Amino acid sequence: MDRRTFSRRMLVGGAAAAATGVTSLSLGAVEASSAENPPRTAPAGGVVRRLKMYAEKLPNGQLGYGFEKGKASIPGPLIELNEGDTVHIEFENLTDVDASLHVHGVDYDIANDGTRMNKSHVEPGGTRTYTWRTHAPGRRKDGTWEPGSAGYWHYHDHVVGTDHGTGGIRKGLYGPVIVRRKGDILPDKTFTIVFNDMTINNKPEHNSTNFEATVGDRLEVVMITHGEYYHTFHIHGHRWADNRTGILTGPDDPSRVIDNKICGPADSFGLQFIAGERVGAGAWMYHCHVQSHSDMGMAGLLLIKKPDGTIPGYEPHHVAGGAEKKSAEGEDKDTDKGTAEHQH
Amino acid sequence: MDRRTFSRRMLVGGAAAAATGVTSLSLGAVEASSAENPPRTAPAGGVVRRLKMYAEKLPNGQLGYGFEKGKASIPGPLIELNEGDTVHIEFENLTDVDASLHVHGVDYDIANDGTRMNKSHVEPGGTRTYTWRTHAPGRRKDGTWEPGSAGYWHYHDHVVGTDHGTGGIRKGLYGPVIVRRKGDILPDKTFTIVFNDMTINNKPEHNSTNFEATVGDRLEVVMITHGEYYHTFHIHGHRWADNRTGILTGPDDPSRVIDNKICGPADSFGLQFIAGERVGAGAWMYHCHVQSHSDMGMAGLLLIKKPDGTIPGYEPHHVAGGAEKKSAEGEDKDTDKGTAEHQH
Amino acid sequence: MDRRTFSRRMLVGGAAAAATGVTSLSLGAVEASSAENPPRTAPAGGVVRRLKMYAEKLPNGQLGYGFEKGKASIPGPLIELNEGDTVHIEFENLTDVDASLHVHGVDYDIANDGTRMNKSHVEPGGTRTYTWRTHAPGRRKDGTWEPGSAGYWHYHDHVVGTDHGTGGIRKGLYGPVIVRRKGDILPDKTFTIVFNDMTINNKPEHNSTNFEATVGDRLEVVMITHGEYYHTFHIHGHRWADNRTGILTGPDDPSRVIDNKICGPADSFGLQFIAGERVGAGAWMYHCHVQSHSDMGMAGLLLIKKPDGTIPGYEPHHVAGGAEKKSAEGEDKDTDKGTAEHQH
Repeated sequence: MDRRTFSRRMLVGGAAAAATGVTSLSLGAVEASSAENPPRTAPAGGVVRRLKMYAEKLPNGQLGYGFEKGKASIPGPLIELNEGDTVHIEFENLTDVDASLHVHGVDYDIANDGTRMNKSHVEPGGTRTYTWRTHAPGRRKDGTWEPGSAGYWHYHDHVVGTDHGTGGIRKGLYGPVIVRRKGDILPDKTFTIVFNDMTINNKPEHNSTNFEATVGDRLEVVMITHGEYYHTFHIHGHRWADNRTGILTGPDDPSRVIDNKICGPADSFGLQFIAGERVGAGAWMYHCHVQSHSDMGMAGLLLIKKPDGTIPGYEPHHVAGGAEKKSAEGEDKDTDKGTAEHQH
Repeated sequence: MDRRTFSRRMLVGGAAAAATGVTSLSLGAVEASSAENPPRTAPAGGVVRRLKMYAEKLPNGQLGYGFEKGKASIPGPLIELNEGDTVHIEFENLTDVDASLHVHGVDYDIANDGTRMNKSHVEPGGTRTYTWRTHAPGRRKDGTWEPGSAGYWHYHDHVVGTDHGTGGIRKGLYGPVIVRRKGDILPDKTFTIVFNDMTINNKPEHNSTNFEATVGDRLEVVMITHGEYYHTFHIHGHRWADNRTGILTGPDDPSRVIDNKICGPADSFGLQFIAGERVGAGAWMYHCHVQSHSDMGMAGLLLIKKPDGTIPGYEPHHVAGGAEKKSAEGEDKDTDKGTAEHQH
Repeated sequence: MDRRTFSRRMLVGGAAAAATGVTSLSLGAVEASSAENPPRTAPAGGVVRRLKMYAEKLPNGQLGYGFEKGKASIPGPLIELNEGDTVHIEFENLTDVDASLHVHGVDYDIANDGTRMNKSHVEPGGTRTYTWRTHAPGRRKDGTWEPGSAGYWHYHDHVVGTDHGTGGIRKGLYGPVIVRRKGDILPDKTFTIVFNDMTINNKPEHNSTNFEATVGDRLEVVMITHGEYYHTFHIHGHRWADNRTGILTGPDDPSRVIDNKICGPADSFGLQFIAGERVGAGAWMYHCHVQSHSDMGMAGLLLIKKPDGTIPGYEPHHVAGGAEKKSAEGEDKDTDKGTAEHQH
């Protein structure tokens, strides 16, 4: 039984995810045996799941969400659903202030709003189960079209600091949610990049998160913005479609293909691209393109390796304002494997 | 003769709108007899209308547009057209400074620009008729496609304070325009939400506009931004399509479905959703998601009631930073019925 | 042999562009003999071109790119490609600081990144050839859809001042790139408008760039944002589709038609519209709609003339805050013919 299958069976069964060490909830899918074959796609949903989620203080004074006690991360773990799935999240607040779990995009009744106004927050030491539902698109009885839940969404605190969660978000209480539609193309790896105030994923300046991949990998980025400022998200050498999936539906899709996008707090979108397609391996920057923001350190690297593991022209110890990067080969503690990266 | 029919006949006939007390110009449409039936849709346009519009000082020192003397509001009244309609607006400036009516989206010649540069402003006490035309999409003689006028647009002053109307807009001289295409789905209620500097609809902090609806109502929001700042518009528990109508055209529409959108001054868009669909009744917040903006009071409520009129979990007198709301059941003067809400 | 044909043959042949005085690289296309005929469209690409590009100091202390020594402009010259084209740009740095050429949207390997980190910048007096490739859309071997390179892109320095080129961009080192798809409708004229910090095309306040056209011209705008601030781009009396080309693909295109769009640094988009369509000739403002930005001078004019050359209601010497314009008939040095305007 491989890891994916294990995870899925456990997750479907109950709250066991907390015991497995996984930092994301992923639904299994049929593997393609070769790159020439059609890519894996998302199955129909309809599964009911149970998850444990904790909010807790991190050693550096920040706050994080995690599936296990003592394993909170910033961003919090990826929650991946298929349209039709329901998830019951038993949320335990291990911080010393009121906190909550508020989600974007999915269906929840007002008692699951995660706001103080709707009394759906959790006191220190308390527990509350939030239920999120999702649905496929379809025709309503009146003949009009109802959109499905698919999207690149996110969850965050709505209570810490202010009634809009300003303090909780600032300290790291946020994470990604992906809801997929049956047939959506599945990536090989998913990265979460959150522009939160002047940080990426709450990392200190000049110490942002790098991500690794190999040429040919199908990469997915969940891009979320939080905080106070607007940003523009830019990747060097790669582009995406400015539509629901970040992938053009085909030749008739009129969506703009872009490599730069303005975004503001609580905006989220997803993109998929093939690592190094037509451009090859390299240390490809991604950064906020607001000039002062990138200069202050809102930059990271997509380290796209050749099949032999090398990256042409890349010197891990290059030091320069705005793009200083530590090694990606061993001593680099900044290449994010367990939290913002999700291996499929 | 019901109110809608009355209004329409009067409006079509001439400048009589000023005498009827209506605060919006609406075109009639066939009513569906039951929710199971197809929704009402917009008819073809082609009507020529005449309207009276006033700019005047409000008691609180702000400025507003209105269809009748002494009845100006912020935002100004909704002007709703169907592609092909023409409207002649006899604009009378009751303020003590030069003012104008500048519109986005529709067709007007340069003499109707509403700018000082084009001498299309109005002196204090003066009157000027602005003509706005609209058209359906179609093929040009050269075979290329010409877009129609349909859209969620707006009008505003372009003269008060500066040659870009900065003073007029700041004080409230703005309002919504909807141009519909034949076949567009008509809502049950339309709300106008304007993020203007740090206010919603120029209301003071912590005193923003709430809107009421009943589960199952088809709601439409005209969302307009003005002033100096960027914002992100977010609704709890409801989503819309990021396209022309805010409604997906069907399963092949690649548009993103969102619940949060960055917007800047003079941006405008429309959205439609079914109140409480899959989430039920509740006091659903909408707010700017820029954290300091919501904390300073850029938040309001969609008060979505059960058919029996109750709202689960809602205590009208809840007091909290950033989301303080007065009662919605009687004494609440902030639930906006006459200006920013338009009953169909 | 007309100018276009001449240019093309020379360009295709080699680096001769530097000797021709052209300020843009344009591919020829079949002319329509009358407005009633279908418009000219872009041909298939596949051409390999060679260009010379210089970065140099301008007399006013700013920096610019140009195809010839001593002819640098802000924005730099338009580079226009068709999907499938390759361009080799021999870049010579005539400034006294390190500089580079970094491009958005097209295909280039990491050695052509134009960043210091990837050692692809150029020392003062140095030369380096950057190669940009483009490709048409199509199916990958795995059956998924690969987007083409078509888009409204741009190039800029990534080295001057900071490792993100903040100093180079501020001083004017940027320019437009258009990649067209076979069949894309070609405009009669292309204008480039760059909102860079609080300027348009780095022009001083109240001295922004006007553009001239005649009613019926098919106009194209490449709109690029740079620097530190967000802006909203607005045109009076004209609209465009918020999609790849700025033109609706037809009646089923769900894209929003807009006349105002929020944009942030490094965002770029294109739009096409027919000058004066349904609105006639006039001095039509375009401006940033952030109120303080327009008041500080981020405004220009589309001077759309009647066939007889007159512009109704336009007085070139109108002086007013935020929209002061010099004459467009002779003494106006601000109507930009050689740099930001590209005649087809």
